[in-house]
Amino acid sequence: MNVPAAPDLGYERLDFRIGLNPGRLLSDGVPWWDYRKAEELVAADPDANWFDYWARLSRHYEPIGRDALAAGRELSGGRWLWLASMCSQYAQFIWFHEPERREDEQRRKVQLYRDAAPHLSPPAERIEIPFEGTTITSYLRLPPAAAGPVACVVLLGGLESTKEESYLFENLLLERGMATFAFDGPGQGEMFFDVKLLPDFHRYASAVVDYLVERPEIDPGRLGVLGRSLGGYYALHCAAADARLKAAVCWGGTFDLSDFNIMPPHIARGFLYVSGHEVLARGREYLQEAIDLTELAPELRCPTMIMNGRLDAIFSTKQIAKFERHLVNAHIDYYLEDEGIHCAHNLWHVVRPRLADWLAERLPDAADRP
Amino acid sequence: MNVPAAPDLGYERLDFRIGLNPGRLLSDGVPWWDYRKAEELVAADPDANWFDYWARLSRHYEPIGRDALAAGRELSGGRWLWLASMCSQYAQFIWFHEPERREDEQRRKVQLYRDAAPHLSPPAERIEIPFEGTTITSYLRLPPAAAGPVACVVLLGGLESTKEESYLFENLLLERGMATFAFDGPGQGEMFFDVKLLPDFHRYASAVVDYLVERPEIDPGRLGVLGRSLGGYYALHCAAADARLKAAVCWGGTFDLSDFNIMPPHIARGFLYVSGHEVLARGREYLQEAIDLTELAPELRCPTMIMNGRLDAIFSTKQIAKFERHLVNAHIDYYLEDEGIHCAHNLWHVVRPRLADWLAERLPDAADRP
Repeated sequence: MNVPAAPDLGYERLDFRIGLNPGRLLSDGVPWWDYRKAEELVAADPDANWFDYWARLSRHYEPIGRDALAAGRELSGGRWLWLASMCSQYAQFIWFHEPERREDEQRRKVQLYRDAAPHLSPPAERIEIPFEGTTITSYLRLPPAAAGPVACVVLLGGLESTKEESYLFENLLLERGMATFAFDGPGQGEMFFDVKLLPDFHRYASAVVDYLVERPEIDPGRLGVLGRSLGGYYALHCAAADARLKAAVCWGGTFDLSDFNIMPPHIARGFLYVSGHEVLARGREYLQEAIDLTELAPELRCPTMIMNGRLDAIFSTKQIAKFERHLVNAHIDYYLEDEGIHCAHNLWHVVRPRLADWLAERLPDAADRP
Repeated sequence: MNVPAAPDLGYERLDFRIGLNPGRLLSDGVPWWDYRKAEELVAADPDANWFDYWARLSRHYEPIGRDALAAGRELSGGRWLWLASMCSQYAQFIWFHEPERREDEQRRKVQLYRDAAPHLSPPAERIEIPFEGTTITSYLRLPPAAAGPVACVVLLGGLESTKEESYLFENLLLERGMATFAFDGPGQGEMFFDVKLLPDFHRYASAVVDYLVERPEIDPGRLGVLGRSLGGYYALHCAAADARLKAAVCWGGTFDLSDFNIMPPHIARGFLYVSGHEVLARGREYLQEAIDLTELAPELRCPTMIMNGRLDAIFSTKQIAKFERHLVNAHIDYYLEDEGIHCAHNLWHVVRPRLADWLAERLPDAADRP
C-alpha cells in the first residue's frame, strides 16, 4: 500500500471525490443543488478542485446567514451559518495531504457552527469540560417543553466527522423527546489540535457522562451513546467501559482495524493523520492495537444496535461476524441494509428515523416503560 | 401547437421526465436516493416508465409506514406514509394522457396523506367545508405551545400541486409561529373530481377565510396567503378580492396565460385537463379569460411578494413587467433568483426560508409590531 504525501490519488479533483459519498454530504445537509452544480462543473472543467469549490460555497452562505441574523431572522440565520459550516466541513473532508489548509478550514467550520449554535432550534449550548490538560468541547441540545428530566444520547463522530455534523440527526432525537450531547474526542475536530487518536477514547466519554449526570435537565438513568463510522467502534467501547450508558448504537462502525490494508487509501491515510503518524508500518501497528474491541467486548451488557450497509467499502462485512462472536453478553439488534453504502448514508430517510426510534425505545420515560 | 391524446411527447419515459424538475421533487420530499436510482435505471433501460417507477416506490414505503405506526413509532410512521403519498404524487405528476390511471393514483395519494396527517408533528387536522354543493377539503396545522391566537397562512397549490405537497414548507411557517391552512380549490386535488378550473377561485378562498376567522386559535387580523406556480396567480387574485388577507406571496406565479402558446406542451395539456377542456382552441380561449389579473389588479393593496427564478420555462419573465405595470396600489417586493428554475425549486434551501420570514414579518404578533 502506498500512502503518498503528494496528491497523487486524485485528491484534488472534484470528479474523483464527487462519487465518494454524496449520500453522506446530502444527509448531513449539503444542498442538492450545490452537489448537482459540482457534477456540472466537472463536465466543463475536469481539473475543478474539490476544496476550492466547497470553500467558495462556505463563503457564499456565510454572509447570507450573518445578514439574516442582523435582520432578526434568527432561524434562517442560524440555519445558513450552519450550512456554511457544512460547506467548510466538506471542503476539508479527507483532505489530509495539505494539513495546514485542512486545519484552517476545520477551524473555520468550528467557528461558523459556534456562531450558528445559539440560533438553532432548539439551540445548541456550547460546553467546555476541562480534562487532563485539554478541553472537551461539546454541544448540548435539550428538547423544548420537557416536563421533567429527559433521556440524553451522547453522539460520537468518527475518523472524519465531528460534533458539528450531527445537527440533522440530533433533530430526530430531539423531536422524540431526547437531549443530545455531541463532543470531539481524541483525534477529532477541536481536540485533534491537542490530542491525537488514543486507545482510551472511552475515558473522555466517561468524563462527559460525569458532566451529564450532574445536569438537572438530564435523567442520569437514561443515557445512551451513538457513534457513526469509527465512532460506532467508540460507542461500543464506551458502553462496555461505562455501565452508566444504558443503550449503544454502532452506526457503520467496526470491531477492529483488520481491514486497514484493503481500505480505500485516502481513508487509511486519514487514520495515520488523526493518530499523528507518518510512517505507514508504524502507524498501522499503532492503530491496529488502539482500535480493537476484543478485550472489552464481554463487558458490553446494554441493549445494542449494530447498523451498516452491506456495500460498505471501508469496513468489510467480516466485522459483523466478529461482533457476533465477541459481543456475547449483550442483546444485539443487527440492522443491515442490502443497498446501503458506508453507514447506509444513501438511505438516510429510512435509516436515521429507525436509529432514533430504537434509542427512544431503549431510553423510555418511566411512565412509558412496559 | 399540438396537444396529443397519445403519449407522443415522451411522457412515459423516465429519461424525458427525469430532467423536468428534480429540484421540485426533492424539495417536496422525494428521497434523493430514489431519484438517483431513477437516473441509473434509465442508463440500464431507456424505456423505463416514470409512472411505474414512482408508483412502485409508493407501495414500497406504505407498509414501512404502517408497520411503524402499528409498533407505536408515530413520528416515523407518519413521515413514511407521507413519503409514500409523495411518491404517488410524483407517479401521476403531469400524467394527463391516461386520466384514469392518474386519478386512481391521485386518490391513493390523498388517502396516504390522510392516514399520515394525525401523526405529523404538529398534526394536520383534516377539515371539510361544504360550499355550493361541493366540499373544500383542507388541512389545518397549528404551531405547538402558542400563547394566544396565531397568524395563519392559507396555502394554494397550482396546476399540478395540491394541499398534500406543502407539508415541508408548512414546517417552516410553523416553526416561525404561524398556522398553516392548505386546501384544494377548483381544478385541484380532491376538488378536481367535482369542480374544474374556474375564474372565481377567490370565492373558494373567501369561504376558507370565513371558516378561519371563527377558529379561536387563529388571529383573524393576521391572515396571509401564499400560492405556488399557478397558485401564485390565485394568491394575488384572492388577496385582491378579499381584504381580510393581509399579506400575499406569489411564488412562481403568473399575471395571465399569455404564455400559453410557448409553454412546454405537457404543461399546456395540463391546463386543458384541469379545466375539463379537450379542444385546444376553445380551451385556450377559456383559460386565457379565466386566468387574468388585469381587472382585479388595482384592488390588491396588501404587502405582496413576487418570487420566481429567472430561468422559469413555464411562465416567462414578461409576466414580471405585467405585475409592475398593473399592481399599482400595493407595495410589492420582487425577489428573483438568477439561477432559479420555475419557483426556484432548485434553490429551496435559500428561497423557502426567505418566503417564510417575509410572511412572519408581515403577520407579526401585536407584541412584535414596531
